[in-house]
Amino acid sequence: MKHIGLYIVLIIYISCNTTTKQKSDAKTEHKVSNTFLERVEPPNWWVGFKNNTLQLLVKEENIGNSTPSISYEGVHINKVHTGRSPNYLFIDLKIDKTTKAGKFDIVFTFKDGTKKTHTYELKSREKKADSYVGFDSSDAIYLITPDRFANANPKNDRFENLKETEVDRSHDYKRHGGDIEGITKHLDYIKDLGFTAIWPTPVLTNDMPRGSYHGYAMTDFYQVDPRFGSLQEYKKLSEELSKRGMKLIMDQVANHCGLEHWWMKDLPFEDWVNDQAYYEKNKENWSWKTVHTSNHRRTTNQDLYASEIDKKGNVEGWFVTTMPDLNQRNPFMATYIIQNSIWWIETIGLGGIRQDTYPYPDKEFMAKWVDAIMNEYPKFSIVGEEWSYNPLLIGYWQKGAKNRDDFVSNLKSTMDFGMQKNVVDALNEPESWNKGLVKIYEGLANDFHYASPKDILIFPDNHDKSRIYTQLKEDVVNTKMALTTYAVLPRILQVYYGTEILMDDSKKPGDHGLIRTDFPGGWEGDTVNAFTGEGLTSEQKEMQDYTRKLLNYRKSSKAIHTGKTIHFAPLNGVYILARMAENETVVLILNKNVKPVTIDLNRFKEIGLENTTLQNIISGEKLKWKKSITLNEKGSLLLTTKKNN
Amino acid sequence: MKHIGLYIVLIIYISCNTTTKQKSDAKTEHKVSNTFLERVEPPNWWVGFKNNTLQLLVKEENIGNSTPSISYEGVHINKVHTGRSPNYLFIDLKIDKTTKAGKFDIVFTFKDGTKKTHTYELKSREKKADSYVGFDSSDAIYLITPDRFANANPKNDRFENLKETEVDRSHDYKRHGGDIEGITKHLDYIKDLGFTAIWPTPVLTNDMPRGSYHGYAMTDFYQVDPRFGSLQEYKKLSEELSKRGMKLIMDQVANHCGLEHWWMKDLPFEDWVNDQAYYEKNKENWSWKTVHTSNHRRTTNQDLYASEIDKKGNVEGWFVTTMPDLNQRNPFMATYIIQNSIWWIETIGLGGIRQDTYPYPDKEFMAKWVDAIMNEYPKFSIVGEEWSYNPLLIGYWQKGAKNRDDFVSNLKSTMDFGMQKNVVDALNEPESWNKGLVKIYEGLANDFHYASPKDILIFPDNHDKSRIYTQLKEDVVNTKMALTTYAVLPRILQVYYGTEILMDDSKKPGDHGLIRTDFPGGWEGDTVNAFTGEGLTSEQKEMQDYTRKLLNYRKSSKAIHTGKTIHFAPLNGVYILARMAENETVVLILNKNVKPVTIDLNRFKEIGLENTTLQNIISGEKLKWKKSITLNEKGSLLLTTKKNN
Repeated sequence: MKHIGLYIVLIIYISCNTTTKQKSDAKTEHKVSNTFLERVEPPNWWVGFKNNTLQLLVKEENIGNSTPSISYEGVHINKVHTGRSPNYLFIDLKIDKTTKAGKFDIVFTFKDGTKKTHTYELKSREKKADSYVGFDSSDAIYLITPDRFANANPKNDRFENLKETEVDRSHDYKRHGGDIEGITKHLDYIKDLGFTAIWPTPVLTNDMPRGSYHGYAMTDFYQVDPRFGSLQEYKKLSEELSKRGMKLIMDQVANHCGLEHWWMKDLPFEDWVNDQAYYEKNKENWSWKTVHTSNHRRTTNQDLYASEIDKKGNVEGWFVTTMPDLNQRNPFMATYIIQNSIWWIETIGLGGIRQDTYPYPDKEFMAKWVDAIMNEYPKFSIVGEEWSYNPLLIGYWQKGAKNRDDFVSNLKSTMDFGMQKNVVDALNEPESWNKGLVKIYEGLANDFHYASPKDILIFPDNHDKSRIYTQLKEDVVNTKMALTTYAVLPRILQVYYGTEILMDDSKKPGDHGLIRTDFPGGWEGDTVNAFTGEGLTSEQKEMQDYTRKLLNYRKSSKAIHTGKTIHFAPLNGVYILARMAENETVVLILNKNVKPVTIDLNRFKEIGLENTTLQNIISGEKLKWKKSITLNEKGSLLLTTKKNN
Repeated sequence: MKHIGLYIVLIIYISCNTTTKQKSDAKTEHKVSNTFLERVEPPNWWVGFKNNTLQLLVKEENIGNSTPSISYEGVHINKVHTGRSPNYLFIDLKIDKTTKAGKFDIVFTFKDGTKKTHTYELKSREKKADSYVGFDSSDAIYLITPDRFANANPKNDRFENLKETEVDRSHDYKRHGGDIEGITKHLDYIKDLGFTAIWPTPVLTNDMPRGSYHGYAMTDFYQVDPRFGSLQEYKKLSEELSKRGMKLIMDQVANHCGLEHWWMKDLPFEDWVNDQAYYEKNKENWSWKTVHTSNHRRTTNQDLYASEIDKKGNVEGWFVTTMPDLNQRNPFMATYIIQNSIWWIETIGLGGIRQDTYPYPDKEFMAKWVDAIMNEYPKFSIVGEEWSYNPLLIGYWQKGAKNRDDFVSNLKSTMDFGMQKNVVDALNEPESWNKGLVKIYEGLANDFHYASPKDILIFPDNHDKSRIYTQLKEDVVNTKMALTTYAVLPRILQVYYGTEILMDDSKKPGDHGLIRTDFPGGWEGDTVNAFTGEGLTSEQKEMQDYTRKLLNYRKSSKAIHTGKTIHFAPLNGVYILARMAENETVVLILNKNVKPVTIDLNRFKEIGLENTTLQNIISGEKLKWKKSITLNEKGSLLLTTKKNN
């Protein structure tokens, strides 16, 4: 989620220091109607998983004093657990391989002989496990902050029974009304830009009094936030993406919940969240002064010399005051999180998960979580967020890493904050021996350390970072150079919504609310409409067009997806990188010279282009690769041997 | 050797663009007198090595047209090779295990029947292989530039038959007259400071017209530069060190020689040096404009995407115009370099080798070179110079690294330029979330990546880097803090001569000639004498005293040598690191607060010091570890549980 260094946001969070007693009763559409129970989670399950166990969390007053029983062929109660609170039961079920889908009653017999019944459903799986295909380096992912992208349904903007009722587009940290339907409505726009997947930041209920728009403080892990829409609308988004051959990535959070999460009022165990005793003692006066927040020293995950107190401080401290830190070492919590992820994959038909704040939960648990998911969905993809510029840490979390501590992360994808920064530095810095383009060259050389460079996610910007246009000091040429570079690297590509129209946060660089500015045209009455192009400046239109051409080429480029990479040390302000597949070579030339320069192509013989006619991917112009090329102006030249027009 | 970015030095080198025909005839004391040969190298050998082969390079006019024979029990000529030049023979000998030491004749029979004789000697080995014990983390190494440390013998300052005759102490890039005897003379001073080893930069002949003082442009790999002294004096230095329980580390260069190396006038093969054809074609007009210098892109050693032309450019390009790049892929050159190293170890009784410019020669050869040495001297140590701040590269070269390309370097020790810089940044930067002391904390966390952190060399400064006092903006407190930190890290420690008296290069930071300033008192008539303390400022004396106390403690500190390390994330400008052995705990407290601060010791329980009385290693003061400590001023506090006074 957000970078810890950015105190601005922290302050926003910690201003929400209240534990109001108001109970959320926004419609929870998944609730089985014929039940006396407050909650059963997961609300349903499926037959046909490899893992044949299921643990139900049952919440109801005094339910801990009942004994559940089930009479359904192939469903067995293995064990029943009670917690500290009498209002919970955890029921371990075993589901036989031969068990048929269907509904059955769970009968709860109380000590006084009373029996109450809940009807539970085991569904048939709609698709084969193999058909949940995750994202990979062939994908370009459009990252969206749903509250800020498009408001298709103004009727769901506010709910009186939710704690944050205000909708105020003039305020960067308040809700603006964007919703899931707004995304669905504009999928053609996104597809047309060349994207193949979307990653909306979390859409589950954040019934928090303030700052709820960002979605990372979940108060219900099984409910779509009504202000974003319904479960049906979320499913529809997935279906509409599927129709277009696109994938839906869900942003999940295993590290924490929101302080207003329903269970915070009645915690099932004494160690359900970290630092729970302290919280329970101080919750009436909960504020940024009292909370034990994480020390955010994430290197304690690797550091041989880290003290136990610092390790604990990272993993067990709360991310911020308003986000209780889930204790994944409580086995019930661990199971809860794993089942929750699988429930969403299966319910929505996900094409991937982005896991927030990856180095904050217990790392052994996270490895198990990934393993549990990949065990059920072998072709799935998960990317974990570690905000680090250090290749050692980026590499540590990736599956196949040769870690000296023998830690096996299982995670297919990590995030390349390091290389993201290298590209920006390369363009912002004047050229010298160890500055400028060499940052790309030497940064990319670090790939030798990674288990699988092409499974790492690269991005010009995201919801926590300054917009690339701002990072590059509002230099359009540099912005195009950067986007082009990210797009051709051996990586999964992710771009933040609005980057295609040069959205910026230059007024207050790094300000989260500003970074997450409304996408123009997403709201009725917007004078500028980026979906239609109406009111965009010529620079914005040009950037949009550039993005479209670049990503649409990328979409079917085997050279970019899985080709061999070869690059040449920068020389005289020019850097050349080639991606090569069997019948396709893509050449990126980054030129930082303002005045015309001629480069001798003799040095690049290895890429085998002599006397080949190449096409400029953006302009469509033809170019013959002969003895030299003259570059007339600063910028990127992206060439292909494939005839694409 | 020098960092490539430092163009100043490059320009100094390339100003020596001349290939004079003048023949060096400085006395080569190792030459066997009863010979008609110009050269035989190695000039002698030993019986009793594990490797029972020896390849002699024989140089003499027309020697290629002769056939050598030997009649000595246990010595066999396996094969004789001729090169491109008729003036060389390479003779492969096999020396049986039972061969006795002694002298024997090599008889050269020419085509016309003439016979000529050379007497060669196989000596007995003076010491057992196991007794060549290299440096390790128990060592503190004093790095010396011999020309600049002490001139014990003004008679050897200049030799008319060497190309650079001038001695001018007023000029930073000219010879100043320092010599080996000057080092030997002051070993008690060095020992008294607490050092356990010395590393003089190269002392072999550099018969170059300019810039010869630094020693990295060797023109004879088997001769001590007469201006530094004789082979006998070099041996004496080693013996005097041994008497004091100290080690001698030799600075060797496998990558290049000086342009005036004797073989450059008559190269034995057409690929003896890299880019040889080009050199031979252009040598009459050799200048910085014509030479193909290395691209210095050292990441090509690891980079999966590096082009062949860049790889070649790094390894085969000349380091600078005046340093021909040795071609270690020529098997005769490879053998020559390996035998040369072993010859010096055995002749001088070395306690280690520092290998210059480690990522520039062929890396597979370097691995073989290390292996060949370690095979003969299993307890020996070699440290290779890779000037990189990137832990990936620092780690790559170390023995035991889990490199994905399966490269096995064999090298026990690499250099930690990364951590060196982290300590400096930590002290120079104001404290913030991600600046200041956290640079030490997070930098040290990278140790999780290294095969053996304690075998990596750390240093405040060296002959190529600004003096630490200059790096720290002439802040004495920071300088002490830095030195203390380097001294207690799990590393081998190396300090450049004069750092103990705050020598600086502040007038022109980074200027090599200035960095290598004369040590005061090393020359007759010096008004300041750092050996006696005469004329030193009180700050200098205090620093010298501080260094002495610090290193003398370090000398016998098991906690520092091999103890467990534990550290705590910096908090409020204070960082604490502990090193722990069975009966000794050393605690380093770095405090950046100018005003008094009290730190709660409860956080540091893990180091088990509650109610222990500690001693300040520098001041000798006692301190009881109770609930808190108040730090009254900025600085480092180095405490031990050992009663050392």
